[in-house]
Amino acid sequence: MRKIAILGIGQTKIDEHWDKSLRDIGGEAALAAMQDAGMDKVDSLFVGNMLSPLISGQNQLGTFFADWVGLWHQEAVKIEAACGSGAAAFRAGLMAVASGDIESALVIGVEKMTDKAGHDITAALATAADADYEVEQGISFVGINALVMRRYMHEFGWKHADFAPFSINAHANAMHNPYARLHEKISVEKFERSSMIATPINLLDASPVGDGAAAVVIVPAERVASLKGKPRVTVAGSASSTDTIAVHSRKDPLFLSAAYQSSKCAYEMAGLKPEDIDVFELHDAFSIMSALSLEASGFAERGQGVRLGLDNEIGPKGRIPVCTRGGLKARGHPVGATGIYQIVEVVQQLRGGCGQTQVEGAQVGMTQNIGGSGATILTHIFNVE
Amino acid sequence: MRKIAILGIGQTKIDEHWDKSLRDIGGEAALAAMQDAGMDKVDSLFVGNMLSPLISGQNQLGTFFADWVGLWHQEAVKIEAACGSGAAAFRAGLMAVASGDIESALVIGVEKMTDKAGHDITAALATAADADYEVEQGISFVGINALVMRRYMHEFGWKHADFAPFSINAHANAMHNPYARLHEKISVEKFERSSMIATPINLLDASPVGDGAAAVVIVPAERVASLKGKPRVTVAGSASSTDTIAVHSRKDPLFLSAAYQSSKCAYEMAGLKPEDIDVFELHDAFSIMSALSLEASGFAERGQGVRLGLDNEIGPKGRIPVCTRGGLKARGHPVGATGIYQIVEVVQQLRGGCGQTQVEGAQVGMTQNIGGSGATILTHIFNVE
Repeated sequence: MRKIAILGIGQTKIDEHWDKSLRDIGGEAALAAMQDAGMDKVDSLFVGNMLSPLISGQNQLGTFFADWVGLWHQEAVKIEAACGSGAAAFRAGLMAVASGDIESALVIGVEKMTDKAGHDITAALATAADADYEVEQGISFVGINALVMRRYMHEFGWKHADFAPFSINAHANAMHNPYARLHEKISVEKFERSSMIATPINLLDASPVGDGAAAVVIVPAERVASLKGKPRVTVAGSASSTDTIAVHSRKDPLFLSAAYQSSKCAYEMAGLKPEDIDVFELHDAFSIMSALSLEASGFAERGQGVRLGLDNEIGPKGRIPVCTRGGLKARGHPVGATGIYQIVEVVQQLRGGCGQTQVEGAQVGMTQNIGGSGATILTHIFNVE
Repeated sequence: MRKIAILGIGQTKIDEHWDKSLRDIGGEAALAAMQDAGMDKVDSLFVGNMLSPLISGQNQLGTFFADWVGLWHQEAVKIEAACGSGAAAFRAGLMAVASGDIESALVIGVEKMTDKAGHDITAALATAADADYEVEQGISFVGINALVMRRYMHEFGWKHADFAPFSINAHANAMHNPYARLHEKISVEKFERSSMIATPINLLDASPVGDGAAAVVIVPAERVASLKGKPRVTVAGSASSTDTIAVHSRKDPLFLSAAYQSSKCAYEMAGLKPEDIDVFELHDAFSIMSALSLEASGFAERGQGVRLGLDNEIGPKGRIPVCTRGGLKARGHPVGATGIYQIVEVVQQLRGGCGQTQVEGAQVGMTQNIGGSGATILTHIFNVE
């Protein structure tokens, strides 16, 4: 597989963009990435999106955005893997350019979520779960995660406040990210006092939805062998793995086996180990997912992911910095766009442009994007040269 | 790009499968293809589907089917390009295997459409069009095609009955395809007398929706250099192109520029010309689309696609046999599955297994799958060795 470089990145602020359409936000991120790459045309477009058919009545987003950003006649397609759609679109673009059939790809992750009422969004998000065996029973997506969190607390003896550091770190880092949805510092007290959503998950365990889009431009690395002015970021590892769609079918619902499998493959491809990762943008849709992701990806023992937060190891100066731009929790979680936000943020870190939350000397970054309750998990490793 | 072979094919009958779920039909086609390929495991799964979030409340179909057919931990993803979803999933799988990162892929095209009422399906299909500028005006998908057909008749002087040969050929061929939805011979008189849907498109101009799934297994060609017993079918050309999403934005709404572009690229990649194609499975969602597809792909002059039917050139013994297994018109059009049905049917032709509608000595077959009203068009060329 030929080596791929990320030449351009772009993103919109995550917000309730009632004054902007799906077209507007996707186009804004796409054109920013093209401008950053110094390109006005690319061979192909891959769009990651989950909810547009349900929320905006719009399918065929590949061609929809190719048309909007002026890529007429270029190949375009949409990829969907629930909340893992962004990274899945990135991996599809990566393999397309790696195949040698095309020489460049624009990958957009985009989601417009706030044009519908909250209960519509809850129903739409439930399409990530098993419609026949989970949703049919009336459980929502946060409900499924709540069952997992409760079991984890029971099994490993943690109390709710032990998860606070994940959210506190995310909120603190988002203060320095102008694209983040939430700019509000929180404390353990505030975390413990926030409104209950689905016991034991409360408001500050959960990431906010939002409207947002992020985009990257990728090209074969040999094409940009001597980039002037900015560090060249390349893809060192890429892997995707799956688990059962319903949580109840898993032998062990507290182990993200698809995270284990995809991170293992990505490490092997990159020739790296967990201790080589300088920054890790993980998928903290709920605080419990941070713990499970850290454990399955080799940063903590089973049941001990929470300890990394308590031991102050997850901040920008910690052993394994996570959510350095705010994560899903505070940057926001426009579901199909999240995987591309994570990649954009790792590129920002590797370019050294993260200001107060810059991880000093970051050379290797990892992203992990999760679809459903651990059903589809993609891990990517990037390095700078 | 390394050469890819199609090792296995599978399909379900297209019908109103009220006794079978989305899982059932997709699984049936997938397992048939795996059995045909003689494989019980593949590296990856690519699913083409358009409507499942809207009709079945189920997203994340990649993992959904990986789970169902026992491909736990294998990579899986869903691709959507409206009615072009099937071929788009095939091309994504093709590029993934061509990249060298994976060694085999199962590609499923699947659609469950009859679990909802007709007006729900009409609304769901309209998500292929431009939600803001077409659907917002109240036009349905068949309505858009009717405007195109009316303009074509006006511009080039054809009358409605001149389109009859496309539907008559499709229905005649479907008589010999056990997987086809319709088994009913039709005549010009019947064609002219059928119920009007959206003037000038009547019932026999339009393809029926249905529940159906088709699947293929692909591997690098070098891996199956010496297939015993059956001819080896390989991918000679593959290309995808796009046009504006809304018909009104096109300079010439009667020219499928994305068909022109993708067939041109596929011919170039294969080193072939239109006259080398022995069988052409085109996208006859409406009879007008057969004419436009033949014209844009180099088989007829502008405005003269209809003449190929009138001159009796499109039957299995004609100059350019189309819809040899019934086409969308009579085999049926389970939208996201159609592109894979077309590929399965061309493989059947190249293997010489089409009985009464076998194109004698077929060595090269082409498929063309269309998303929206010509917005996304994928062309593939296959040959037998």
